[in-house]
Amino acid sequence: MDGGVPEVGAPTVGELGELAVLERVTGRLPAGSPLLGPGDDCAVVAAPDGRFVVTTDMMVHGPDFRWAWSSPEDVGWKVAVTNLSDVAAMGAVPSGLVVAIAAPRETPVAVLEGVADGLRLAVDALAPGCGVVGGDLSTSATFSLTVTAFGDLDGRAPVVRSGAQVGDVLAVSGELGPAARGLARLFRDGVDPSGEPDAEQVRESGADADPDVARQRRPVPPIADGPLAAAAGATAMLDLSDGLAIDAGRLARASGVTLEIDVDAAATTDGAPLDAVALHGGEDHGLLATFPADARLPGGFRRIGVVRDRWSDGSGDLGRTSVDLVRGGVPVSTTGWDPYADWDGAAG
Amino acid sequence: MDGGVPEVGAPTVGELGELAVLERVTGRLPAGSPLLGPGDDCAVVAAPDGRFVVTTDMMVHGPDFRWAWSSPEDVGWKVAVTNLSDVAAMGAVPSGLVVAIAAPRETPVAVLEGVADGLRLAVDALAPGCGVVGGDLSTSATFSLTVTAFGDLDGRAPVVRSGAQVGDVLAVSGELGPAARGLARLFRDGVDPSGEPDAEQVRESGADADPDVARQRRPVPPIADGPLAAAAGATAMLDLSDGLAIDAGRLARASGVTLEIDVDAAATTDGAPLDAVALHGGEDHGLLATFPADARLPGGFRRIGVVRDRWSDGSGDLGRTSVDLVRGGVPVSTTGWDPYADWDGAAG
Repeated sequence: MDGGVPEVGAPTVGELGELAVLERVTGRLPAGSPLLGPGDDCAVVAAPDGRFVVTTDMMVHGPDFRWAWSSPEDVGWKVAVTNLSDVAAMGAVPSGLVVAIAAPRETPVAVLEGVADGLRLAVDALAPGCGVVGGDLSTSATFSLTVTAFGDLDGRAPVVRSGAQVGDVLAVSGELGPAARGLARLFRDGVDPSGEPDAEQVRESGADADPDVARQRRPVPPIADGPLAAAAGATAMLDLSDGLAIDAGRLARASGVTLEIDVDAAATTDGAPLDAVALHGGEDHGLLATFPADARLPGGFRRIGVVRDRWSDGSGDLGRTSVDLVRGGVPVSTTGWDPYADWDGAAG
Repeated sequence: MDGGVPEVGAPTVGELGELAVLERVTGRLPAGSPLLGPGDDCAVVAAPDGRFVVTTDMMVHGPDFRWAWSSPEDVGWKVAVTNLSDVAAMGAVPSGLVVAIAAPRETPVAVLEGVADGLRLAVDALAPGCGVVGGDLSTSATFSLTVTAFGDLDGRAPVVRSGAQVGDVLAVSGELGPAARGLARLFRDGVDPSGEPDAEQVRESGADADPDVARQRRPVPPIADGPLAAAAGATAMLDLSDGLAIDAGRLARASGVTLEIDVDAAATTDGAPLDAVALHGGEDHGLLATFPADARLPGGFRRIGVVRDRWSDGSGDLGRTSVDLVRGGVPVSTTGWDPYADWDGAAG
């Protein structure tokens, strides 16, 4: 076992067996209203406008979460919202999820029940009406969850990354920074002397009561703002999974534009200007979008900059796309996140 | 590492990094023709009749496959067809796949390329036109693949498990037994003296040339027969993943009927009657369906029995549903398969 499983008592999934586990877990999941629910070879989901959006995202114990730092409910919540957020970023309304879980045989069934509760809480809070329409349960030495989410565009064109137009307003919805601050707090205060994640250290240090830690465990993306942005005429949009700086770069490259971000704009939900954590911190799953200059920004969207033409070296040749961060003329560089480059498997 | 990864040389996914790996893998996948392909927050897939079917199925190194017994191409093939077969079992035509892979950092990139090749070969052979429209790549101590597949019902009602009618013909399409015989061969001849799966033993024993082993590695389900069955009026259908006896029991219970199987019918593709392996062997992913008595059986479907009323104890009270295997009046019992009950994690 890498990192152990929460010790919440018998029975384990190995003791109870697949069918009995599924029976205990399924009733806790959000049902939604598919045309045909779980229990057959496939579910059947409505796609009223003749299309559906689809995304898949996996969470693996070790690189993506640690039982010492997150409860089963936290993990279920997080794997739901990371997928729902991708659906929202197309301007779609979530219409269904399927969930595949691989669990060690010694995993208490209560852990899977907790994961199901977290999935339900997230869906009820952020995408009511969406249900878990199917799933799979398997054994593995490593606990992992894979969610695939669907959404309904309601007759609109999908809002892709490549549609930003010069002169558009750049806007963001959702929190910037808390999830990253929470993770930093856990790495600082939630480890034992050898650096291993340790639940007791989290409790004793008071990190359990830190609202940033709560956001790291259960991010609250502005799911409903995705379809609102589409309806308001958003020209491009994406989900802020890796941080504003990196994800703005993706939108800029896809659209062939330069994004000018005013880091002294009141760009965070608490009214503070952008700091390094708000620029580079990931996992809050806010939405970054561009709107026509005369659009009224919907929901929680707030203006953080403008869309400029591609960067020019002065020769008249329009060159690379970029993100220009304007703060007294000093640029802030962007760096990448790579799960293989940064993860130490032994720390999981 | 549990069971190791194939030693096919550098670079590893950890050395190359996520983006470079994706670049090398994506071009080998079948593209299909989604409305919007990979690269944005979601893909967009057509659902011409306003609905889609969806299923998800995971393969984990250890319980579900072993690198010592299967090549990366085999694994990609198998995870594709197990999902495509569930789509076919609803009477739907596969319209897209998403693939989430968790790989140890030390996995050679060539392994992921092989998996992609296997996915492409399977789709090209059995569901041409279907594409991989999205995916996710993560690190894990345990290699796993999760595929979610979609399908198009083409305006027809889904063929569910619960629709069998008394008097219907019971029919099967696809092979019965080879995949299970192949697995038994691998367990017998493909292990080292301590019982561990061993690629050299597979080669030396000649098991590599055994057509049953080939079917265990790359089952060939009759995907196209699913929509054909629906068009021919099939009243119920399911995918034979756990063997005819178990899966027939599922159809019988869901439909509230008894299925009478004539085990002396020429029920296998080579014309032999049903034996114990054909009855109980799983993983061939054939299709079991019921048709009105006057229907012309489509594609590779062949009659193996009839649908009877629920079993009666003689009191006039119609009791439990069942599967009655008729061979000189002697019933053949059915047993269950439970991944938690039967898997020894240490053997993976």
